[in-house]
Amino acid sequence: MSEHPEDSSCELPGAPPPEGRRHRQFDGVTWDGITPRAYKLGASSVPGAAWRDVVRHTLVGGAGEPMAFQLRYFEIAPGGYSSLEKHRHVHAIIVMQGAGRVVVGREVFDVAPFDCVYVPPSVPHQFINAGADSFGFLCPVDADRDPPQPLTPAELHELLGDPKVREAVRMPETTGSGVRD
Amino acid sequence: MSEHPEDSSCELPGAPPPEGRRHRQFDGVTWDGITPRAYKLGASSVPGAAWRDVVRHTLVGGAGEPMAFQLRYFEIAPGGYSSLEKHRHVHAIIVMQGAGRVVVGREVFDVAPFDCVYVPPSVPHQFINAGADSFGFLCPVDADRDPPQPLTPAELHELLGDPKVREAVRMPETTGSGVRD
Repeated sequence: MSEHPEDSSCELPGAPPPEGRRHRQFDGVTWDGITPRAYKLGASSVPGAAWRDVVRHTLVGGAGEPMAFQLRYFEIAPGGYSSLEKHRHVHAIIVMQGAGRVVVGREVFDVAPFDCVYVPPSVPHQFINAGADSFGFLCPVDADRDPPQPLTPAELHELLGDPKVREAVRMPETTGSGVRD
Repeated sequence: MSEHPEDSSCELPGAPPPEGRRHRQFDGVTWDGITPRAYKLGASSVPGAAWRDVVRHTLVGGAGEPMAFQLRYFEIAPGGYSSLEKHRHVHAIIVMQGAGRVVVGREVFDVAPFDCVYVPPSVPHQFINAGADSFGFLCPVDADRDPPQPLTPAELHELLGDPKVREAVRMPETTGSGVRD
């Protein structure tokens, strides 16, 4: 998963540490004091970079806390999916609710609550809601990290050459859903 | 939460990256390929440093993965609690199951699944199972971090001067449970 561009503006050295809030209660939808945001801004015409119905909650980090990571929660609505992308930083995610399908290189995993997925550096990946309810997962990530990149046409071609992967990934170009987000 | 001393031996630079396992399924008790370990080795006679019935699962990190944090899961059995301690590194925890009580300085929070708690640097804290079932939470933490310290007698005296905190904390010396772990 990657970030809203404005995230970086919150990570300036010397930003004041957050005041007060040490306990954030979950009300069934979000946490008090946390504003859910769109996963990414804007659209993309790059094949594979499309995403649909993903919301991001940054729970801790990026606001001056002295820590090497950020703790985020992503929620993907039924029918939704994240970008198919790669980057040097790794992912270590834990499913909190719902049913997901995760593409990690040529591997495809069906995941349920408490399941853990590790995405090694530079391995293409995509998170897909595979159920009828929201699919939510925690995604702590290095605070200092490289931006995500779309796959090159050659990488995309090679990855989609695997029938298992081709069936799992969600791209308007391959699913024919007509969604150009 | 702090670490089993042998953790540090897994974090040597140049350790080989983990092979293969990208998906760890949860079977209701633990994750495949993960060995639950005791929270800490040995006993302590320092007031407040006692702990009881805490198990640690290190899910990702500490095995050569190129990441600035580790993702751990702690489970505290009914009646159990972590050490009352402090350190410069922060905590950002998310409750996964059960009912907990968390002491963060002079604040005491009752927490439920999905709740998030931030522990700022050097603030004394303790995690307590407040229910009849297991209390489990995720605790991603900086890979490079200082060891936990017990409170000084003066700090302990000041903290326990708050009736709310004194009632919440679990220490054999204050609860009279007779447990000297």
